[in-house]
Amino acid sequence: MDEHAAEIRSHYYDVRQHSERLCDGLVTEDLCLQGMPDTSPLKWHLAHTTWFFETFVLKPFDEAYLPFNECFEVLFNSYYNAVGQQFPRPLRHMLSRPTVAEVLAYRHGVDHAMAALLEQCPGDARDEIYRRVILGLNHEQQHQELMLTDLKYCLSLNPLFPVYNPQPLPESHSTPLTFSEFEGGEFLQGISGTEADAARLPGFSYDNEGPRHRTWLSPFALADRPVSNGEFIEFIEAGGYQAPEWWHSDGWAVVQTEQWRMPLYWRQDNGRYFSFTLHGNQEVDAAAPVCHVSLYEAMAFAAWKGMRLCREGEWELVATQRPPTGQCWQQGCQHPVSRDPGKGHGPDQLYGGVWEWTQSAYSAYPGYRPQAGALGEYNGKFMLNQMVLRGGSVATPPGHVRATYRNFFYPKDRWQFSGIRLAKDL
Amino acid sequence: MDEHAAEIRSHYYDVRQHSERLCDGLVTEDLCLQGMPDTSPLKWHLAHTTWFFETFVLKPFDEAYLPFNECFEVLFNSYYNAVGQQFPRPLRHMLSRPTVAEVLAYRHGVDHAMAALLEQCPGDARDEIYRRVILGLNHEQQHQELMLTDLKYCLSLNPLFPVYNPQPLPESHSTPLTFSEFEGGEFLQGISGTEADAARLPGFSYDNEGPRHRTWLSPFALADRPVSNGEFIEFIEAGGYQAPEWWHSDGWAVVQTEQWRMPLYWRQDNGRYFSFTLHGNQEVDAAAPVCHVSLYEAMAFAAWKGMRLCREGEWELVATQRPPTGQCWQQGCQHPVSRDPGKGHGPDQLYGGVWEWTQSAYSAYPGYRPQAGALGEYNGKFMLNQMVLRGGSVATPPGHVRATYRNFFYPKDRWQFSGIRLAKDL
Amino acid sequence: MDEHAAEIRSHYYDVRQHSERLCDGLVTEDLCLQGMPDTSPLKWHLAHTTWFFETFVLKPFDEAYLPFNECFEVLFNSYYNAVGQQFPRPLRHMLSRPTVAEVLAYRHGVDHAMAALLEQCPGDARDEIYRRVILGLNHEQQHQELMLTDLKYCLSLNPLFPVYNPQPLPESHSTPLTFSEFEGGEFLQGISGTEADAARLPGFSYDNEGPRHRTWLSPFALADRPVSNGEFIEFIEAGGYQAPEWWHSDGWAVVQTEQWRMPLYWRQDNGRYFSFTLHGNQEVDAAAPVCHVSLYEAMAFAAWKGMRLCREGEWELVATQRPPTGQCWQQGCQHPVSRDPGKGHGPDQLYGGVWEWTQSAYSAYPGYRPQAGALGEYNGKFMLNQMVLRGGSVATPPGHVRATYRNFFYPKDRWQFSGIRLAKDL
Amino acid sequence: MDEHAAEIRSHYYDVRQHSERLCDGLVTEDLCLQGMPDTSPLKWHLAHTTWFFETFVLKPFDEAYLPFNECFEVLFNSYYNAVGQQFPRPLRHMLSRPTVAEVLAYRHGVDHAMAALLEQCPGDARDEIYRRVILGLNHEQQHQELMLTDLKYCLSLNPLFPVYNPQPLPESHSTPLTFSEFEGGEFLQGISGTEADAARLPGFSYDNEGPRHRTWLSPFALADRPVSNGEFIEFIEAGGYQAPEWWHSDGWAVVQTEQWRMPLYWRQDNGRYFSFTLHGNQEVDAAAPVCHVSLYEAMAFAAWKGMRLCREGEWELVATQRPPTGQCWQQGCQHPVSRDPGKGHGPDQLYGGVWEWTQSAYSAYPGYRPQAGALGEYNGKFMLNQMVLRGGSVATPPGHVRATYRNFFYPKDRWQFSGIRLAKDL
Repeated sequence: MDEHAAEIRSHYYDVRQHSERLCDGLVTEDLCLQGMPDTSPLKWHLAHTTWFFETFVLKPFDEAYLPFNECFEVLFNSYYNAVGQQFPRPLRHMLSRPTVAEVLAYRHGVDHAMAALLEQCPGDARDEIYRRVILGLNHEQQHQELMLTDLKYCLSLNPLFPVYNPQPLPESHSTPLTFSEFEGGEFLQGISGTEADAARLPGFSYDNEGPRHRTWLSPFALADRPVSNGEFIEFIEAGGYQAPEWWHSDGWAVVQTEQWRMPLYWRQDNGRYFSFTLHGNQEVDAAAPVCHVSLYEAMAFAAWKGMRLCREGEWELVATQRPPTGQCWQQGCQHPVSRDPGKGHGPDQLYGGVWEWTQSAYSAYPGYRPQAGALGEYNGKFMLNQMVLRGGSVATPPGHVRATYRNFFYPKDRWQFSGIRLAKDL
Repeated sequence: MDEHAAEIRSHYYDVRQHSERLCDGLVTEDLCLQGMPDTSPLKWHLAHTTWFFETFVLKPFDEAYLPFNECFEVLFNSYYNAVGQQFPRPLRHMLSRPTVAEVLAYRHGVDHAMAALLEQCPGDARDEIYRRVILGLNHEQQHQELMLTDLKYCLSLNPLFPVYNPQPLPESHSTPLTFSEFEGGEFLQGISGTEADAARLPGFSYDNEGPRHRTWLSPFALADRPVSNGEFIEFIEAGGYQAPEWWHSDGWAVVQTEQWRMPLYWRQDNGRYFSFTLHGNQEVDAAAPVCHVSLYEAMAFAAWKGMRLCREGEWELVATQRPPTGQCWQQGCQHPVSRDPGKGHGPDQLYGGVWEWTQSAYSAYPGYRPQAGALGEYNGKFMLNQMVLRGGSVATPPGHVRATYRNFFYPKDRWQFSGIRLAKDL
Repeated sequence: MDEHAAEIRSHYYDVRQHSERLCDGLVTEDLCLQGMPDTSPLKWHLAHTTWFFETFVLKPFDEAYLPFNECFEVLFNSYYNAVGQQFPRPLRHMLSRPTVAEVLAYRHGVDHAMAALLEQCPGDARDEIYRRVILGLNHEQQHQELMLTDLKYCLSLNPLFPVYNPQPLPESHSTPLTFSEFEGGEFLQGISGTEADAARLPGFSYDNEGPRHRTWLSPFALADRPVSNGEFIEFIEAGGYQAPEWWHSDGWAVVQTEQWRMPLYWRQDNGRYFSFTLHGNQEVDAAAPVCHVSLYEAMAFAAWKGMRLCREGEWELVATQRPPTGQCWQQGCQHPVSRDPGKGHGPDQLYGGVWEWTQSAYSAYPGYRPQAGALGEYNGKFMLNQMVLRGGSVATPPGHVRATYRNFFYPKDRWQFSGIRLAKDL
Repeated sequence: MDEHAAEIRSHYYDVRQHSERLCDGLVTEDLCLQGMPDTSPLKWHLAHTTWFFETFVLKPFDEAYLPFNECFEVLFNSYYNAVGQQFPRPLRHMLSRPTVAEVLAYRHGVDHAMAALLEQCPGDARDEIYRRVILGLNHEQQHQELMLTDLKYCLSLNPLFPVYNPQPLPESHSTPLTFSEFEGGEFLQGISGTEADAARLPGFSYDNEGPRHRTWLSPFALADRPVSNGEFIEFIEAGGYQAPEWWHSDGWAVVQTEQWRMPLYWRQDNGRYFSFTLHGNQEVDAAAPVCHVSLYEAMAFAAWKGMRLCREGEWELVATQRPPTGQCWQQGCQHPVSRDPGKGHGPDQLYGGVWEWTQSAYSAYPGYRPQAGALGEYNGKFMLNQMVLRGGSVATPPGHVRATYRNFFYPKDRWQFSGIRLAKDL
């Protein structure tokens, strides 16, 4: 058996373990919550990520495999029309059966079959199996992030404000908001991945990150850190949420309809701001990055500052020169923290703090074609109406993101750890 | 200690035990389901019925009592504005905490304090305490019915169709639909209860059952049994759901909007009708009473037959002459069954099969006044827009209903075991 | 030709003329407004009342009649399923064609054919024709009331607040709120009309006013006049709209959702109350009857006063002893006015001021059967979910109402001239 | 007076006249229709375009000017928050007053004042006045297009299907769908306008068309004409509306919810397709461009063909080489027509047939800044969630569009004359 096979098996084991470890400290009842149609119960995430391997690897490549339960094909299909029908998303919380215990048994049954298949991996199908396994593991990592953001949203609705992570938040450090300048020019944006790369662990990227293509960037400046809570509070207290001039038309409509007055999870009490976090209720740390803002809020804030958000190409140009490491990942912290004051000049905290909204619509790169079949639904069919975010958050599993990574959400979405990095024209 | 006190304590124990016994065979996940805003999780019912004793008995009458958890005052208040705020009903399924285990601990803590209070019941407050305890137990019995109807609704949404009661349904017997005639005339409708009665176990009635008052009834005939599934299928197959002439205007609008084509929980397959029941999926028994129909459907069916539903006074006149016993209660069956063919002539199955829609709006009897304070919200504030049902269903705890008992739901509601008894003018 | 025929023809002419006279002073644009689905454009009312005669009289009884325009059968059918399809109610304002001029031509064409038919009325069908003509004229009078209430609603949405009736409102007189007592007892409620009566002008009543039937009334007191604006303002200023204890559960939900704080058309400015009326914007007259309140508000007000609304039988018992005359009708005033202080003791202003909400649900009297065919849809299919109002308002054409007359609206409706008369148990 | 001033005054007169001429043949009732919140009554368009000159030219620059009616400031403000409040858009059809006649008087009053101001145009403000007048005239031309599309939508809801333009549609000619190839490369996209240009008639462009900026285009092919109805019918009949694989996720959701089965205004009858047009009901011409499709439908069609829509830069590159002329404009036809078969090879019908959906999100060009003040709301605040269309339609006033012109609508919008031009990668 070659080294790469061993590496994949070991990675498979690690990622799958991690999903279950995220449930440590939670009770059965927590795993069944669904706070809005956009979120899913943790139990469902555990099952759906398993369904992915069963559907796309075991059923086509393991002749001896017997499906765990035929009904799961529908129950745990998220959105793959080519696979068949889907249980209605807003009702996922209604599936008391299978129970949590049965879902764990499903996971372990599939893991067992996967281990056997990877062990005796048939030569002719090996590359395709590896490609799908690696895609499945990246898929599971995306759901690990959703497990945390969905859980946070659900727990926040409970007046008992349950604490997920009892570890105290680290000490806070205030740093000034400085900018770094970039010349821009011709830039090759996106990854130059090949089919072969997708079957290799370290070379993986999603299809939406390519093809690499030529773009032009005008000179620009990028902030050295994300916008802080303190800076955002200035916007609030300057009446930003009451002043239509800073908002896009659609954003202003949402502010009125939803009565937005501050970021999601915040409340004001006696002039002080508090926020529900995975570490429990906390007073808002003025130096830490603001998060749980929509694109509308991010753009309104930038307009109020006389600046703008960056384009995704600008972000990528800067990020390709920096390693994808993050403070929060190192500290085991599940809420964004302030910038390490010891860091020198230059853009920092690009990874693993907050997802940074860009002003770029999520669309296909020139020459992009979704692959044939059900897996072609993975990314392509969402390339309308959503906007690109870059960088990864405290909830993103370390090692999952990179400079070319494109995340996407609707402009109104706030339940992700989404924040703001300012840019300006030069 | 007197005999009545002992009887109350024993009844308290029985009723409280019964709520928990209804959960036998269910898993933690089942107890957290909420299929629509009208339903509540079983866990919530277990907690709310406990909150009732804590709020209305222990807090005012037991000086030594320490609330189990201050937050529960809001979390488990259903609709008592005079007590304070209520956690939003549609979000009850979001309360993963307190857990099922904690709710059971809450129940047992309150039961313990209640047992002590009932033991040493202070003389001056004794009647008021008894009155509230008896009200609380009747309240809990109402929630026992809801536990079953809410559970049924929730499980029906799961394509795995979980079985709650594995006992087989009894054999079916077809009997013809016959009518009995009644002269009517002056009738004293309602119960002549007094304040004192409300503090006595066998004499209890709700305030909405009185005051007893004079009414006139014209001669009428009443069906000897509820309408059967077979009779209702004739309506379906005669195009009843496509013919506006049988429907009230509001009912016809709902039929169009909701695309109703048959009773709730039914589906048609190859010309046969099947229904989800607490005993699992079953072929519809043509001889058993139709249930899970709205008032709109009940009235449309009656119009199609050239008949009508009864008025609540008519039903009560007939029912006062018969003991409140029911076949299903005797057989431990949680789905309505066909009439025992051995029964002679005369109205039968008045109790404990299906709730029977009447054509009477739920409103205050002449002279009715809700009591002062929070408990005055129990019945009075619902006396608009709802319609009276009589008789109790398979889900009603035996011993809970009587001839004067008035249940009420909106015309469009279908998730109760609601059926049809025909009447005609003579 | 007999005298009755002449009387009918003359009445036909008067009623039809009156509908058009209601449009005096309005412009084409006003006649096309539809402020909410519950209201219809005046142009539509003019056409629909004409459609009624065309559909139910000319088409069946005049062989020579050629329909004005085949499309009108659908366009101007309100809710008669037996006649066929209906153009969707909420879109009635979208019918720019036929124009106002064409609708008037339609009216005059039908009037011409009707005059000819009534002239040479065929002997065998005469009674049925008379019955339908008289029903059609009463139908048109109901629409004349709606023309005023719908117009008022529509004009109120225009910030220019157009004035419909420039005549000044009469002087106001304050009178104390006194009550008259009644013994009740056995009462024959409803009209004892026969088929023959329905074909006679002075004997007409709607089918829902009968059959006459025996009822019992307990002793009660009835207010001598409707509740005044001044009395209702006390309720507002005592926090009535913020206190759930006075409201039915469904009413309280509407108060919260709709943010009701005062009657429809009112606004508060510097501590004074103003109201949009058909006579333009006016300061609220403290002595005049409050109107444009829902049943929820009427019942909450009564509860706050420690009283109740009357039952429809109580109202009818009192009204049968009084002639159906009204102050406003005499004064040509289209807004309710204060009681004439010269009137002695006893219930007054029963007719022609405000429709008085009762606590009685609108349902079939014992023995009621809707007639066969399309005209059976006139009243019967609305006998659910609505509540009875009695007495007629300033917008009701004089001569249209009587003691047995039953109007009905939903508890939440406010755009009619609906007010409050208090009652109490003795 | 200089020549440019004369030209502006003459252009002012022409454009203003044209708006009123569009109403020729319509009746007062037609001018008041509002079929959905997105559309406005024609009367409102006539008033709002007048309000634009009153608000942005007369009030600031003509000291002697007395506002026609103070209320119009609110009534006819569309969306300029900086000017003040706006009357709610969905209720615009409720403004029966001012009447059509009063709105025309308003127009003529403003035109009179404008003529005087332009005559004696003050030297120091002249450039700014010219800039605003020219913007106002382009603004009015945009509303002229909306007048036709809004009217079409409204008339289509009337089962009488009123005919706006009785002129017969021209003869149809079928041409094959051919493509032209382009090398792409570096392209300067957008207009290089200056402040000074905006005050000159022939040089005008909107701010969103600039700044001119460098882009890269890969080699591509562009269809020589828009997709025809016949080609789109093939998609329909191949089950395109039932096959999720061709649709973006959001588009597929709309197809399900709205039950889309063909373009807006189409219906199928006995295997033939008919469409409501401004020339009345017409059988669909297989050779004419398909229109009234959403972006979702345009993209699904392109995916089904294995192609794509063009990017806005690609369209602009091709269009800059061709004059902005259109067949329909020449023929006075208000429905798209088939390609003139006499035309040779190369992209044709770029202008004045159908607006062509692109795959480009409507966003700010690099370096774009909205101008300060209310007029900065003209374009900038819509640069989110909408998509770019290019070319102009039959409803666009001739002379209004150019190669750099960017129109924008939401992906789901269908009531514009929006069609499809295919592109492919080379």
